[in-house]
Amino acid sequence: MSDLRNDGFLNGRLRILQPAKGYRAGADAVMLAAACPAQPGQSVLELGCGAGVALLCLGWRLSDLRLTGIEQQPEYADLARQNADLNAIACLIITGDLAAPPADLRAESFDHIIANPPYFLAGTAAPDLGRAQARQENTPLSLWIDAGLRRLRPGGTITLIQRADRLDGIIAGLSDRAGDIAILPVAARTGREAGRIIVTARKGGRGPLRLLAPFIMHENGAHLADGEDLSPAASAVLREGQAITNLFAKVS
Amino acid sequence: MSDLRNDGFLNGRLRILQPAKGYRAGADAVMLAAACPAQPGQSVLELGCGAGVALLCLGWRLSDLRLTGIEQQPEYADLARQNADLNAIACLIITGDLAAPPADLRAESFDHIIANPPYFLAGTAAPDLGRAQARQENTPLSLWIDAGLRRLRPGGTITLIQRADRLDGIIAGLSDRAGDIAILPVAARTGREAGRIIVTARKGGRGPLRLLAPFIMHENGAHLADGEDLSPAASAVLREGQAITNLFAKVS
Repeated sequence: MSDLRNDGFLNGRLRILQPAKGYRAGADAVMLAAACPAQPGQSVLELGCGAGVALLCLGWRLSDLRLTGIEQQPEYADLARQNADLNAIACLIITGDLAAPPADLRAESFDHIIANPPYFLAGTAAPDLGRAQARQENTPLSLWIDAGLRRLRPGGTITLIQRADRLDGIIAGLSDRAGDIAILPVAARTGREAGRIIVTARKGGRGPLRLLAPFIMHENGAHLADGEDLSPAASAVLREGQAITNLFAKVS
Repeated sequence: MSDLRNDGFLNGRLRILQPAKGYRAGADAVMLAAACPAQPGQSVLELGCGAGVALLCLGWRLSDLRLTGIEQQPEYADLARQNADLNAIACLIITGDLAAPPADLRAESFDHIIANPPYFLAGTAAPDLGRAQARQENTPLSLWIDAGLRRLRPGGTITLIQRADRLDGIIAGLSDRAGDIAILPVAARTGREAGRIIVTARKGGRGPLRLLAPFIMHENGAHLADGEDLSPAASAVLREGQAITNLFAKVS
């Protein structure tokens, strides 16, 4: 992967090497990390960790986490290892297929699973192979959820960020095996449809589903000095690395 | 049903006889009617129509609708007929079990189905039998959806209002048989979790699921003269009988 950029995340607190032209993580990875209810000392596995942005955001927010990522594309797995070193955050990055993980990973269970599965169905051509694999679904969404639930200890949580229109697939994948489902709609502005959803569930949970108030990314009509017109909530997450706490109400 | 009240709906535009102590329809029935994308001349079937509030709200909003309701409890079916007469809106009310409808209803298909299935699982004791049947689920939610889809013409819509925590059951019931699913969270106030959801879907639809911006019932912190502190959107629906149009974007 010859052509790399050094991108700043969390207002420059994290430095992340990413391909200049291939798939690059963005706000969604930071939001995913913010929504994971990990506590210091716990273990987190990210399925399809790419260059490691979500794991490293978690590692920046919380000390003493045991962070593991699995990534199928060797170039991205290498980048994730480099990024972990660059930010001095310990991560174990495994190169492999999340649907058929190596035996040592299959032997483990985790307190928390996070994943940002591909947003587009396989078949839409993308110019870059790495980008195509990261953005397109070769592994069906149901397999991501299945793989995550298998690696989760009873009572552990799974947190996903995904396009809002795939809520039905996520709920179908979680049903009967996870409860305490919380759905956070993520909308560009107040009054807009959700573009993304963050869904958290607890393995074996019995609590009711909750549909939370939307997380609003941008101020309506505001043009703030930072040029991003981020809402206060989005700024707290994307620039300050804070957690999204209302998903946590019933998960620990 | 000896002890009746005469309740006003749509700011008094509709007069509805309901039992003073049993189950009484309220804002949810009006919201359900507002969310149904019926057009003049079309047919609408309500499953479990109770005293007929939702059907009559629809009949007030739109002319030339063919309105049909099925209601298992004879006392409520009789009230629905009385209320149709009282408001001079033509409705055919069938006394029967929506899960095993009479043959003449089974022979028909409708442009639109609406339903406000019971909110509580059977087993929670309620002091009044009529109220218990209307509020508690003897017919599982999946059977309501199944019965609705069976009575729907291809391309017709089904609209449900339900507790938000049952979104998973609704999506499971609709999956593979209906698409163009639109979910409208209904929240008491801005920033609150949804208490209710309104879900619209089209039989045989192939369009993506949409998660809409929440419908907010009450103004935050406002104490308006009418004592209800309704939001402008809620007032338009509950007092003026207007439609909720953003659910309609992709359904006709």
